[in-house]
Amino acid sequence: MSKSTGALNSNYEELMAQFKEIITLHTATSIIYWDMETKMPPKGVNLRGQQLAALSKVIHRLTTNPEIGNLLSKIEKNPNYESMDELHKRNIYLIRKHYDEQTKLPEKLVADTAKQEAIAIDVWKKAKATKDFSKFRPELEKMLDLKKQAANILMEVKKTKTPYDALIDIYEPKMTADSISSVFKALRDGLMVILQKCLASPNQPNPMALKRKIPLDVQRKISNEIVKFIEYDVESPKAGGRIDETEHPFTTGYFDDVRITTHYYEEDMTSSLFSILHEGGHAIYDQNFKQEWMFQPIGDSTSLGFHESQSRFVENIIGRSREFWTYFYPRLNKLTGNTFADLALDDFVRAINHVKPSKIRVEADEVTYCLHIIIRFEIEQDLIPGKIDVKDLPETWNEKYKKYLGIDIENDSEGVLQDIHWASGGFGYFPTYALGNIISGQLLNTMEKSIPNWKKQLANGNFGDIKKWLIKNVHQQGNLYDPAVLVKRITGENMNVKPYLDYLNNKCSWVYEY
Amino acid sequence: MSKSTGALNSNYEELMAQFKEIITLHTATSIIYWDMETKMPPKGVNLRGQQLAALSKVIHRLTTNPEIGNLLSKIEKNPNYESMDELHKRNIYLIRKHYDEQTKLPEKLVADTAKQEAIAIDVWKKAKATKDFSKFRPELEKMLDLKKQAANILMEVKKTKTPYDALIDIYEPKMTADSISSVFKALRDGLMVILQKCLASPNQPNPMALKRKIPLDVQRKISNEIVKFIEYDVESPKAGGRIDETEHPFTTGYFDDVRITTHYYEEDMTSSLFSILHEGGHAIYDQNFKQEWMFQPIGDSTSLGFHESQSRFVENIIGRSREFWTYFYPRLNKLTGNTFADLALDDFVRAINHVKPSKIRVEADEVTYCLHIIIRFEIEQDLIPGKIDVKDLPETWNEKYKKYLGIDIENDSEGVLQDIHWASGGFGYFPTYALGNIISGQLLNTMEKSIPNWKKQLANGNFGDIKKWLIKNVHQQGNLYDPAVLVKRITGENMNVKPYLDYLNNKCSWVYEY
Repeated sequence: MSKSTGALNSNYEELMAQFKEIITLHTATSIIYWDMETKMPPKGVNLRGQQLAALSKVIHRLTTNPEIGNLLSKIEKNPNYESMDELHKRNIYLIRKHYDEQTKLPEKLVADTAKQEAIAIDVWKKAKATKDFSKFRPELEKMLDLKKQAANILMEVKKTKTPYDALIDIYEPKMTADSISSVFKALRDGLMVILQKCLASPNQPNPMALKRKIPLDVQRKISNEIVKFIEYDVESPKAGGRIDETEHPFTTGYFDDVRITTHYYEEDMTSSLFSILHEGGHAIYDQNFKQEWMFQPIGDSTSLGFHESQSRFVENIIGRSREFWTYFYPRLNKLTGNTFADLALDDFVRAINHVKPSKIRVEADEVTYCLHIIIRFEIEQDLIPGKIDVKDLPETWNEKYKKYLGIDIENDSEGVLQDIHWASGGFGYFPTYALGNIISGQLLNTMEKSIPNWKKQLANGNFGDIKKWLIKNVHQQGNLYDPAVLVKRITGENMNVKPYLDYLNNKCSWVYEY
Repeated sequence: MSKSTGALNSNYEELMAQFKEIITLHTATSIIYWDMETKMPPKGVNLRGQQLAALSKVIHRLTTNPEIGNLLSKIEKNPNYESMDELHKRNIYLIRKHYDEQTKLPEKLVADTAKQEAIAIDVWKKAKATKDFSKFRPELEKMLDLKKQAANILMEVKKTKTPYDALIDIYEPKMTADSISSVFKALRDGLMVILQKCLASPNQPNPMALKRKIPLDVQRKISNEIVKFIEYDVESPKAGGRIDETEHPFTTGYFDDVRITTHYYEEDMTSSLFSILHEGGHAIYDQNFKQEWMFQPIGDSTSLGFHESQSRFVENIIGRSREFWTYFYPRLNKLTGNTFADLALDDFVRAINHVKPSKIRVEADEVTYCLHIIIRFEIEQDLIPGKIDVKDLPETWNEKYKKYLGIDIENDSEGVLQDIHWASGGFGYFPTYALGNIISGQLLNTMEKSIPNWKKQLANGNFGDIKKWLIKNVHQQGNLYDPAVLVKRITGENMNVKPYLDYLNNKCSWVYEY
């Protein structure tokens, strides 16, 4: 081993050790977040804000430690750097990117944002409960101001065209408002065609047939059965997961401790059913990065869009398929004491695939879901550069819902206050949901070539081959490539909406017999 | 404002800001611990170890940051330092003490001790399960050696007479083995007299009358009723507490988020009942430090002994009183569907105050409990200076149990292996349990002068005045004074066992009709 190789290796190891500490503290922080949403006594909210701020400050300090900059420079200048393998170089690239961005963000801005997040979320909850946007407005304004400050700084580092692009890049590396706009345009056009066909069809499914009173304890058992099907273990002495109950379902965790939440409604079993499938899709992704990449930057998701592709794949492509229900419907009937005995399998499957414009994103069907996202994306595109103000949000929101979905929003609780994302400062986050759907369609299209009989397997209750395919082709790729590159590597194609629209059109033409 | 006053104030504020961060990270760590004991999926255990190690490393780094030493020196050398008020000076004193101790302990010793703790606890569990002290012995020897090294270093910093005193001072500032010995001697003599009277009495209570099957859900409702009584809120939208279930009950938290745990046994309701009262006593202490002292060293308990005085006060002085049960027994009967209808109130109260020497400390009655502690204290006094060796522990232990409690220990699992404390390196910790009981008696004695009719209030279901007295006289004193000073300030007397013995003798003479 030459002297420079020795130095390269030891610098790399030291860099990775420092980053391991940062990642570990991030995973600890995610437990603190989880606790805030699931278990924390309500009075603890301010203290929790301080804890999260202190943790983010510590993490920021470690992330921006000049020693990391020194190690990066030494590594990058080492004559043997170019000959390092792809994995090492990707780790270095990701740490460099993170370091450059974080060192530019002032510690105070980071801490203020973390603190404001806890406050804004708390106020958002109260505003939503009382249908009163004016209560939330000042906290959202503060949050938007903080995120704009960050966006302006990040724009310089990331060399993006606009501040909004800098925010998008946080969640979807290398994607831009322009690139998203062009996919979203094709998506919107395609969805509108399908939507019109569904609405025009004389053969409407009957979603009311699903509204049956299912006791919460029975629903909890159904959840446990569903996660067993996708091999997300929450019960055994080796379990690496758990299910809790929150207002809004989410997934959080890392490798051996990945947790999902759901919300049970006695009169609407489908809510918990599909949220469990959705979060379960996220969870098995988080659990199946390469074990040897734990605590390394590459041992993580490449983007939120890819994360969402996994949740939507499991929720919709699997969970709303006729084949899954061929297997699971008898089980559901058994668990519910034959509550659905009078409803034929096909009528059940058609009902859970019912398409109808609605007010609430998280309750939207597959066809209208992305229209909700496109509305939010358009609003963010105007909000970040200040073309509209926070005070204009309710009006703008309601106008767009009328325009795209033909819906009248009656109060802000079912309108602009419905989502937590802006309260938590997640501007640029929403587009990833639609990108996830688009990617899930491309993944399906590719998987079908490897597992032509996947539907038959599913109907037989076998999710194993599908999960193995996802693990190998998506999960185990971790963060080796930026999302657009990973799509290309897996599918051979650029990101495009055709497979997703084809998948939806196929299903809808069956459901609506058009 | 003079220049030196300005510098003093800004140095003080900077020091407090740094300490606030440390305290906040400690509170975040306690949530991570709580999660590990209550909610964590089993597979997460290794990751959790890494998270806790990373947090403790960060906290240690902040605690020993030379900048804290610089600020302390500047403040202490400032000509206006002496004229600072008592609260400021106490904060500075506590930070100085902590800083000097933490910076003197070599990082390697701290890391080795943490590592040995994990190993020793693991081996202790296995040794306890197999009743085999010899398995545990080498690990305990290593732990003892590490703690002796620390004690020798801390002895220099703390200027204590012996290394054991330096360890005691960690948990009970300024107390020494000598001062504890003299109180414990009087305590032991007094307890032996009461114990003999109880054992000799022909009027024995019947603890078997308590063994009734109470479904766990009913016990959970009883817990909720009990914490309502002591105004530990776990249910309202303003709740600052919660109850969870763990193998060993504990309390953790800070001000607005303080959590207790219990363990339910279907056949033994009293276990959860008194652990809820005990942990509830700890919890209301933690919730009621002065709000404006939050994130300051003075906004905390002065010692473990004082903490234990609060838990034992609520568990025993309140929770095993005839008056509490005059109020609560009808409620207990209602909640349990009249399970105790055949058992008269007085027979119930006598049964929960039954006195009988036993092997296991945590199951001991009020009279014998402190004898368990005295045995451990006497052993530690010989162990730390090497008068006895680790190999002698089982024999010494068993001899003392025979001598003080008349008990034959049949195996080490019910003897020297019963407690986790030594495995975790907690030498000097045990005495605080007995000190807590002693202090609880002195507090009762003093409170009776302010609230002469407290028993009548209790029998009417009114805990308000008692709680107010505890808040004002104990909780709101925080860590303003070392424990012996605080006892003197509250009660006007030095720490002494007479009130506690009087209280016990009064109760036992009623229970045993002697």
